[in-house]
Amino acid sequence: MTEADFLARLRMLPLHQGAQGLTDDTATLAGLTITTDTLVEGIHFLPADPPQDVAWKLVATNLSDLAAKGAIVEGILLNYPLGDETWDAAFLDGLSEVLTELDCPLLGGDTVTLPNAPRILTVTAFGRDAPAPPRSGAKAGDALYVTGTIGDAGAGLAIARAGTGDPKLLARYRRPVPRLADGRALAPRVNAMMDLSDGLLIDASRMAAASALAVTIDLAAVPLARGVSDPLAAATAGDDYELLFAAPADRVLPAPATRVGTFTPGAGLTLTQDNRLIPLPASLGYQHGLR
Amino acid sequence: MTEADFLARLRMLPLHQGAQGLTDDTATLAGLTITTDTLVEGIHFLPADPPQDVAWKLVATNLSDLAAKGAIVEGILLNYPLGDETWDAAFLDGLSEVLTELDCPLLGGDTVTLPNAPRILTVTAFGRDAPAPPRSGAKAGDALYVTGTIGDAGAGLAIARAGTGDPKLLARYRRPVPRLADGRALAPRVNAMMDLSDGLLIDASRMAAASALAVTIDLAAVPLARGVSDPLAAATAGDDYELLFAAPADRVLPAPATRVGTFTPGAGLTLTQDNRLIPLPASLGYQHGLR
Repeated sequence: MTEADFLARLRMLPLHQGAQGLTDDTATLAGLTITTDTLVEGIHFLPADPPQDVAWKLVATNLSDLAAKGAIVEGILLNYPLGDETWDAAFLDGLSEVLTELDCPLLGGDTVTLPNAPRILTVTAFGRDAPAPPRSGAKAGDALYVTGTIGDAGAGLAIARAGTGDPKLLARYRRPVPRLADGRALAPRVNAMMDLSDGLLIDASRMAAASALAVTIDLAAVPLARGVSDPLAAATAGDDYELLFAAPADRVLPAPATRVGTFTPGAGLTLTQDNRLIPLPASLGYQHGLR
Repeated sequence: MTEADFLARLRMLPLHQGAQGLTDDTATLAGLTITTDTLVEGIHFLPADPPQDVAWKLVATNLSDLAAKGAIVEGILLNYPLGDETWDAAFLDGLSEVLTELDCPLLGGDTVTLPNAPRILTVTAFGRDAPAPPRSGAKAGDALYVTGTIGDAGAGLAIARAGTGDPKLLARYRRPVPRLADGRALAPRVNAMMDLSDGLLIDASRMAAASALAVTIDLAAVPLARGVSDPLAAATAGDDYELLFAAPADRVLPAPATRVGTFTPGAGLTLTQDNRLIPLPASLGYQHGLR
C-alpha cells in the first residue's frame, strides 16, 4: 500500500480533533504541539553514517517540525532498537550532544532488541505555546520564502556516498540544525509555514495545494551555498530542514529569508528561471511518510 | 548493550521533570499521561499472528499503561512500516476495530517503507486527568492484588504456536483488553499500581524494589482461568495486561481483584504455596525494554 493510500484509509478512522484531519506535520493536544518521525537505516540515513550523527538527525528532524510551528521545545520520547554495543554507545554520545545543544530534555521512551535488521528509530517531540501557522494558510499574492540555503543536504548526501567533499555540506546532511529561533520569531508574522524536509519543489507544491492556490518558483532566486551550483537539483533534494513560509511581500520579517516565489489563484506549480518557463522535473522531491 | 545499561546511560542525559527519572511506565506533561511501546515481529508478536490482532495488541498494550495510571484516554500516534498490501489492509481493519471499541481517536503518526524486514510498530498513547499512583508507592503491610486471571496470555501464546486450543485463551494473548474502567476506579484508592506486562513475579518484584520493600507472593492464591493449571508458569508468563496494585488489606476496593501477596520491610521476592517456601524460578518473567 502506498503512503497516500494508507493515509487516506487512516482519515476514515476515528480522528482526534487535534489531528487536524491528518493534514499537517503536527498534532495539538492540551496546548502542546506534537510530532513524530521514524528514520530507517538505508532510507533516511546511510548504514555508514556515524551513529552520533544519526542521533543528532533523529532529534533535529523532529524539532524542525516544531520550529515550523513556532513552538518552544518541551522534550522528546525515544523508541530505540538495541543491537550492536559499539553503535549503541556512539548513538548515546550523539544523543547527549543533541539534547544538550538544542536544550531538549528526554521525557521517556521504549527500547526493543533488534539484531540483524535495519535500524528503525522513532522520536516523538513535544513543544508548547506555538502560534502554529498552518501549511494551508497562504493567500493569493503572498510571497514564498525560504530560510538559509537550499540543496546543501542533497550535496552533503552525495559527499557522504562519495566519501569525500566539503565538510560543511556534509554536516548540513548529517547534522541539520532546526530553525527554532527563526521559527519562533516568524510564526506570528506569516500566513503559512512548514519545514523543508522532502525538497523545495514538492514541499512548496504541498503548501500551495493545502492553500488551494498555485505557486510559481523562480529557480534563479533559490539561495545556494558555496559549492552548490545546480538550482534544479537543489530544489528537488530533501533533508534541508529550512523553513518554507508564505507572507505578504511587503511585510517586514523578523528573521532573514529569501523570496523564491509567489502564490496566485489557481492550482499547481510553475517553475521559471530568468523569466523563462522551465519544464517540471519528473520528481519534485522525496516522497515518503505521513509528514 | 543491554536494556538496563542503555537505560542507565539515558538517565545521565538531560531529563525532563515529567520523565520522573525514567523510573515509571509513563511520562507526564501539561496534565497529560504519556506512554510509548514498540512491538517487533518475532519478539512481541508472531509472524503468523493475524494483522488485525497485531493492531489490536499494539493499541491495547499502550492503553494498558494508561489504565494503570487511572487516565482517561485521549488518543494515540502511530508509527507504521508499510510493506505488504494485504497485511497493511488487514492491519487497518484491526486498527479501526480497536480505536472504535476502546474509544481512542487517532492523533497522527508517521509511515515509512520497510520491505523485507521484521515489522516494527510504535504507538504513543495520551491520557488525561490521571490520579497516577506510582509503582513506588507500596507501604509495608500493604496487600498485593491483581485484577482478572493470570497466565491466560502465556497459555494463549502456546496455543498460537501449536495452532490449536481454547479460543478464549488465544484471544487473551492476541486481543488483551486494557483495564481502563477498573484502573480509573482503583487509581485514587491504591498506593501503587502498574500493568502486568512481563509476568506477575517480575512485575511484583519491580514494584517492591521501586517501593524499597520486600514482597511475598502466595502461588496458591494466584487466580487462574479454566484451562490454566500451573500457577508458577502462569506467574512467570507475560502479556496479561491485568492491573497489579498495592493497597491496605482492609480497604474496600471499587473493582474486583484478588489478593496474591503482602509487602513487608526488607527487599526481594519470596514465593510460598500453602505456607511452604517455594524456590524462585530461574526467570521471573520476560525482560525487555524501558517499560
